[in-house]
Amino acid sequence: VSPLTVGVDLGGTHIRAVAFDDDLAPVARTAAPTAAEEGVNAVVGRVAESVRAALARAGSDLEDVRGVGVGAAGLIEWPTGMVLLASNLGWRDVPLRDLLSAALDGAAVDVDMDTNAAALAEARLGAGRGLRHLLYVTVGTGVGGGELLDGRLYRGASGGAGQIGHVVIDPAGPRCGCGGQGCVEVYASGAGIVARAREHGLTADTEGVFRAAEDGDPAATEVVERAADALGLALATYVNLNNPEAIIVGGGVAAAPGYRERAERTLRQRALPALADVVAVLPGALDGDAGAIGAALLVSEDDGRST
Amino acid sequence: VSPLTVGVDLGGTHIRAVAFDDDLAPVARTAAPTAAEEGVNAVVGRVAESVRAALARAGSDLEDVRGVGVGAAGLIEWPTGMVLLASNLGWRDVPLRDLLSAALDGAAVDVDMDTNAAALAEARLGAGRGLRHLLYVTVGTGVGGGELLDGRLYRGASGGAGQIGHVVIDPAGPRCGCGGQGCVEVYASGAGIVARAREHGLTADTEGVFRAAEDGDPAATEVVERAADALGLALATYVNLNNPEAIIVGGGVAAAPGYRERAERTLRQRALPALADVVAVLPGALDGDAGAIGAALLVSEDDGRST
Repeated sequence: VSPLTVGVDLGGTHIRAVAFDDDLAPVARTAAPTAAEEGVNAVVGRVAESVRAALARAGSDLEDVRGVGVGAAGLIEWPTGMVLLASNLGWRDVPLRDLLSAALDGAAVDVDMDTNAAALAEARLGAGRGLRHLLYVTVGTGVGGGELLDGRLYRGASGGAGQIGHVVIDPAGPRCGCGGQGCVEVYASGAGIVARAREHGLTADTEGVFRAAEDGDPAATEVVERAADALGLALATYVNLNNPEAIIVGGGVAAAPGYRERAERTLRQRALPALADVVAVLPGALDGDAGAIGAALLVSEDDGRST
Repeated sequence: VSPLTVGVDLGGTHIRAVAFDDDLAPVARTAAPTAAEEGVNAVVGRVAESVRAALARAGSDLEDVRGVGVGAAGLIEWPTGMVLLASNLGWRDVPLRDLLSAALDGAAVDVDMDTNAAALAEARLGAGRGLRHLLYVTVGTGVGGGELLDGRLYRGASGGAGQIGHVVIDPAGPRCGCGGQGCVEVYASGAGIVARAREHGLTADTEGVFRAAEDGDPAATEVVERAADALGLALATYVNLNNPEAIIVGGGVAAAPGYRERAERTLRQRALPALADVVAVLPGALDGDAGAIGAALLVSEDDGRST
């Protein structure tokens, strides 16, 4: 039997581990609550247990594993796998790669941002198959991204590349969680839509704001249109800087009716025409296992820089 | 004798050609007026003459040339060397690489944006020596840039990457030459400073506006501070997207007292702290032959994609 690769999606509420064979077909999976409130060691322990359990269900064990890839939300240093900041876990400067490798008898571990894992999954198996220059952007509670440049994940000097959520749309705009002001995330994300609606006296969750807009509420309509326009502006800036072939838009908020289309319209109005001409805007094609598949791809595409 | 490489800086007013030896030491140089008003064929002819003359002065000729690199202002498709738009030459869709190669008996020719040539020169021989992830930005009449990612010039899907001048600072801002609004170039460039000062009733050239600001004129001060802040904001967005090790700032306008320093301050306030921590902001170290050297480097670093 050929060795398995385990991909782990470490989220704020759940840990999902999937064991894949050489063709990246899923062989076994496990899920566990993250329970981040119990602290770093408890979470790392549960990730390790999930990996061992997935391997056991696949009839294998750590001796036969090719490697373990982990995608986690937050800002993660590459290749060290140090979680610099993960607000959904309450972590700051957690050496996740080293802790997890130690908890797994020294197994090879890659840790990267979940958005990079998702970008890789879309590039290899999803909407970006065959493309060499793309941005993956996900619009959910927040706005995040990952860049594939010249056919490879681009991580920048320290692993932080792809923070499309922190393109500044309005320097005098609302305060962002990052410490800045007027980042696209404060307009375009689910949390941003809720906060901007509240400024208009409209108290509702993200879906409620979209529903109110569909029902013709003027404040909700303004908030929703501003959200898509802000995303479009940020994408125009990205296009002018990195000249991608495609932008793949994923995430629940971007799936709202008309949202991606309006963002694309704004992008095409605002980007340099010659660069807008060559970029396709595509919906993400993967869900479900995408996070875990991307995490497993981190292992198979690790070119050794992380060792 | 080993073959020479010729680097050509094709500007709006002058054509400068320099023949370099294997160590990129200049061996001979020529200069000619561009005289763009005489049309594409005349300009291409003068570039070819300049290349032949530089080689002749170096005691060589086209039979012994390694290649000819050309850096030109404007938006240039890579690797085809098609000048999509060069407003200083009045060109649109000019196949410069092919025309010049034909005029040079089929010699190997690389044509790229002058900002990419300058970025390469700074990366290999200037302020960016030894770095693998940098942005070169030049602030003169306009604002332009070039990206070195993972140690190589990054051109994007079609050659347009690095248009830092068209990061949108204010979506409702003044109209930009690109068709958009509120691009950093309309605030931070020499032409932008002049235009913004005029809106304040101050008619002066760029130097005049800087002098008025030094003399305490409030409108001029506001325009100059806004210029540097706009550049800093655009650089913060760049840092959040591409996580560089260094930003090298060149160009005459950025050399004005305090300009680069203020832009850096704004960048550090606005970028994600973890990414601001790892980026150095440096003045460009090259001038004079930098454009021609960079153009020659296009030849020596061409990995064959342009053939």
